[in-house]
Amino acid sequence: MVKKWREHVSIEEAWLVFRQNFSSLHKKSNVPVDECTDLILAEDVFSKRNVPHFSASAVDGYALSTKKTANASSATPVFLDREEYQWINTGMAVSLEYDGVLMVEDSSVKDGKLAVYKTLSMGDNIRPVGEDVTCGQIIARAGDKISPALAALFLASGYSFVPVWSKPRTLYIPTGDEIVSGKTWLSEGAVCGKVVESNSTMLKAYFHRWGFPLDVTGPLPDDPQIIRKSILNGVEDYDLLLVGAGSAKGEKDYTSTILSEEGTMLFHWLLMKPGRPAMAAKVKGKPVVDLPGFPMSTAVVLWTLVLPLLQLLAEGNFDEATVLKQAMGAETEETMKLLTPCSSVPGRNEWLRIKAIALQGEKRVFPLSSGSSTMWTMSEADGFALLPRPVAECPAGTNLKVWLTRKIDWTRRLLFQGSNDPAFERLGSYVHKRGGELIYRSVGSLGGLSALARGECHIAACHLLDPEKGSYNNTYIEKLSNGKQWKRRLLFYRKQGILVAPGNPLHVLTIEDLAEKGVRFINRQPGAGTRVLLDVLLQEKGIAVSDVNGYSIQATTHFDAANRIASGVADAALGIKAAADALGLDFIPITEEPYELVYPQEYEDHPCIQALMDALDDPEWRRDVDKLGGYRWNS
Amino acid sequence: MVKKWREHVSIEEAWLVFRQNFSSLHKKSNVPVDECTDLILAEDVFSKRNVPHFSASAVDGYALSTKKTANASSATPVFLDREEYQWINTGMAVSLEYDGVLMVEDSSVKDGKLAVYKTLSMGDNIRPVGEDVTCGQIIARAGDKISPALAALFLASGYSFVPVWSKPRTLYIPTGDEIVSGKTWLSEGAVCGKVVESNSTMLKAYFHRWGFPLDVTGPLPDDPQIIRKSILNGVEDYDLLLVGAGSAKGEKDYTSTILSEEGTMLFHWLLMKPGRPAMAAKVKGKPVVDLPGFPMSTAVVLWTLVLPLLQLLAEGNFDEATVLKQAMGAETEETMKLLTPCSSVPGRNEWLRIKAIALQGEKRVFPLSSGSSTMWTMSEADGFALLPRPVAECPAGTNLKVWLTRKIDWTRRLLFQGSNDPAFERLGSYVHKRGGELIYRSVGSLGGLSALARGECHIAACHLLDPEKGSYNNTYIEKLSNGKQWKRRLLFYRKQGILVAPGNPLHVLTIEDLAEKGVRFINRQPGAGTRVLLDVLLQEKGIAVSDVNGYSIQATTHFDAANRIASGVADAALGIKAAADALGLDFIPITEEPYELVYPQEYEDHPCIQALMDALDDPEWRRDVDKLGGYRWNS
Repeated sequence: MVKKWREHVSIEEAWLVFRQNFSSLHKKSNVPVDECTDLILAEDVFSKRNVPHFSASAVDGYALSTKKTANASSATPVFLDREEYQWINTGMAVSLEYDGVLMVEDSSVKDGKLAVYKTLSMGDNIRPVGEDVTCGQIIARAGDKISPALAALFLASGYSFVPVWSKPRTLYIPTGDEIVSGKTWLSEGAVCGKVVESNSTMLKAYFHRWGFPLDVTGPLPDDPQIIRKSILNGVEDYDLLLVGAGSAKGEKDYTSTILSEEGTMLFHWLLMKPGRPAMAAKVKGKPVVDLPGFPMSTAVVLWTLVLPLLQLLAEGNFDEATVLKQAMGAETEETMKLLTPCSSVPGRNEWLRIKAIALQGEKRVFPLSSGSSTMWTMSEADGFALLPRPVAECPAGTNLKVWLTRKIDWTRRLLFQGSNDPAFERLGSYVHKRGGELIYRSVGSLGGLSALARGECHIAACHLLDPEKGSYNNTYIEKLSNGKQWKRRLLFYRKQGILVAPGNPLHVLTIEDLAEKGVRFINRQPGAGTRVLLDVLLQEKGIAVSDVNGYSIQATTHFDAANRIASGVADAALGIKAAADALGLDFIPITEEPYELVYPQEYEDHPCIQALMDALDDPEWRRDVDKLGGYRWNS
Repeated sequence: MVKKWREHVSIEEAWLVFRQNFSSLHKKSNVPVDECTDLILAEDVFSKRNVPHFSASAVDGYALSTKKTANASSATPVFLDREEYQWINTGMAVSLEYDGVLMVEDSSVKDGKLAVYKTLSMGDNIRPVGEDVTCGQIIARAGDKISPALAALFLASGYSFVPVWSKPRTLYIPTGDEIVSGKTWLSEGAVCGKVVESNSTMLKAYFHRWGFPLDVTGPLPDDPQIIRKSILNGVEDYDLLLVGAGSAKGEKDYTSTILSEEGTMLFHWLLMKPGRPAMAAKVKGKPVVDLPGFPMSTAVVLWTLVLPLLQLLAEGNFDEATVLKQAMGAETEETMKLLTPCSSVPGRNEWLRIKAIALQGEKRVFPLSSGSSTMWTMSEADGFALLPRPVAECPAGTNLKVWLTRKIDWTRRLLFQGSNDPAFERLGSYVHKRGGELIYRSVGSLGGLSALARGECHIAACHLLDPEKGSYNNTYIEKLSNGKQWKRRLLFYRKQGILVAPGNPLHVLTIEDLAEKGVRFINRQPGAGTRVLLDVLLQEKGIAVSDVNGYSIQATTHFDAANRIASGVADAALGIKAAADALGLDFIPITEEPYELVYPQEYEDHPCIQALMDALDDPEWRRDVDKLGGYRWNS
């Protein structure tokens, strides 16, 4: 098969292909006025009625003949007899014998006589027929977005239905032998090799936000016959088809074959990361988009391809300048500087999940570590940034276009960088309850102190052993604070030891055992206090790092290391007891170390530091930590 | 009855009263993960599962033992036998005998032998158990707004329902003897004295936008027993009650009595215009808000009182800085300068419906003339501005805080000021089709030319008779252009004459007849070409303006004048035939006059001027105009 379609297209090229193929598929439909708000009017609308359709009083008061009020004032009232006036409420019809209405405030009644305290002109306080709109008057134009007030006006001017551009109907077809429905997932539990079809939950949420309907099929197996049939049926009943996964370069990728056989492939592969395997086709005149299966890939393709396509199908156009902001549901779109350097693949637009922080009065962002398969960093992110395509290396300070999807209270937010600890991470909720917000970035003990020294965070934490002095932290803090006033607060002591698989199958009991040939060790990143500890222990025992199989393999948190042992890709790690307990690993205690917070004195009055200090005494947090295991309180 | 509640409160005071009374009514509920997006989490959520729950391949390729890949490269491949590797798709489980996955791109297979072109470390291309989240890990905190990705993560981590702050349920009760339901309105037609209950259409639209449920009762009559019972039933079943109208100072205002008898009145009258008659009470612990009946009053009370209250009931708080922008659905909130002066009632916050325009590179706004009863100016408005309370007079150039509820393409929008003409207004749709946007402001012929001279609009139109020269427009344009290059374009000639009620009951046939005692004349505003014409005609006949009954009463458009005759509050007006035809009035022709467009040469290339010039030749528009009646084409 000769591929005739375009490969490796940019977002802009994909949009152009969509415009060339799907700009004239939008259709008119009539919707009830109670459901038309925020839809786009497809035709000019003219009032069918005068609004109001009768002369109505604009006030509560007395209908009368205005010429009888000549020269009336509060000092020189004019008096009218009972048959010369009529009480009238706001909105009531004024009968033809009267040509004005006196406000009740400008009158008094005694023995049936009306005292008039104001001179009126004809028409005063009367809403004439058609004052709001006249029968036949144009009240809205094709292309207008219908506001709540306009919807009400449509009803008042005689419409029960109005002509709008109708919303395209979309079907999402998830595929993959390994995929189970949410229902199965929840009822039958997690089965090895099976993953839950959670993308449709995300799709439903975005479609609901965007105001477009979405239907979802149950997950289909990787069977080309079934997938082919579903696509062919789908394009009959729907305006847009989304096929989930099936676009990785695997042996079971049938979708591109089916799409090119049954229709016209428009493009395959985007110059974007993640989301690269996306493809689009036209089958029986309808657009079909294949979404990569990983959650982040799905999300970015929803933003960059699906919403523009939906708007094209709905209105024949979309606004390239604002569609991404709208798609993400971003609160703001602004330029912010990178806090930390980052690199990307040149030639592709790379999406970053970012956290944002105000440091020394300036808003800065840093990317969250992120595989396209992980959902947590997506939901933890404050927003997203798109690295330009030609760029490979972005040093700290680079300006990025950032979409914030979260409302941020900059004054209450504090950036923590330093040693990773689950008990301290748990503290975040208690700080939150006290009106602060802690943003965590695990960079190891040394990384945290260095970031503090460079002014790149508000607070750090460390557990760094100085083997010469046999003491923790002092040496490092003295050196890195460089004479500045840094406050310290000892949180707790925690047990460090060797993490091994349940039952300790390789009988790892000492530091020396880590150098045994059969043991696959997993280390921590340079600058981590736990790695410093390992180096000290190896040196004490006279063991060369080259004798430890896996010394150069790095995990970035205690849980990351523990997970690799639980997954069977490593046999041992140095780490804290809490991580072993959480993952059901065995733990061989080696030592106990102090975990200490450090922050510059200038931040002492920061509302989040105060919330944090207060939260440290919360007995509920302390109970939480006790449950984790391996912690001892200082006091 | 002694009134104990507060009267005449500011928006801020109303908010404070709400906070004092309704800050702790928010309730938790569990909602399905597919419906939780954009809701606020009521509790911290911890993962029930490891995600992923098995070691999975991160790529398509071959699972193998990484130590066998030592020193492999594209130049020095390592070969593995068939039993030493296994094909694996992305996401499939990696069995325990393997500790890495080779990407298919880094391999080739021949005769069952796998050629490995890359050295792998243990764990390479394997997603370990819990890589995304670990069982027991906190994945979201109380107070977080749930994103689409978080909803998907909830499902993946084992949740079918999540604890959120539930949405309050609201009941809207429209009242008023004069109110008929939309259904009755559409089926039975417009009955004199009856008005359609269209506020619920607006309420439904706003509630839908805001994401809150709303139920609506049929309109209730002004019967205190029925209203009392509905309120008492309502507070049993709902979290918030909105009562429509009943708050004007009329004899049928039962609501305040009922609310103070059955509960506690919190406040009555807002220092706001419109929306002044709003009141709020607490009945059986539930908030009840009485909405004034006019559409604009209803809208501003929805914005200022109802959305804050809904958010308070939903989450226990609302953001005072952003709630109005959110309530209106504004695209932007920015400061803009007034184009024209405006005055307001000091001591009250006054809402303006505004149009916005870019003039000489600066964004300017002007208020639309507006009664609180009119819907059309609400839907025509580009947005709204709130005049500060102490202010009475705002000269042109005053800075206003403006919320724009419409997306504006500033470069394609053009401000017209000048003579009012329905045929020229009809042209707007044809300009719109050509990518331009005409904003109309009827200020009369002289008003338009003066605005043009002051740089306050892009284009004007006039029909101004110079009685001395007997010619139209030249004299005025020469004087006001003050030497600047103004382009002119004659659009058409139109018939001016006397508008009278059908059948001409007072037998008005000449200008002289306007001075007859029994005739109630309705004039146009100073500066209107039609008023200039009247003055010329009266002078020719030697009639004093004081002899014309109603000379000082002003309508601002031809339709406004015609409407007053159709409504019976006036007997005659000078105006164009099209207005008479549209309202079924009789027309006595007096003269024919040229209607001419004028614009400075500098705007010749403005995209909207070009669209306008092109639209003038549209045969469909000309057919439209011919149908209006009373027009003659120049060519």
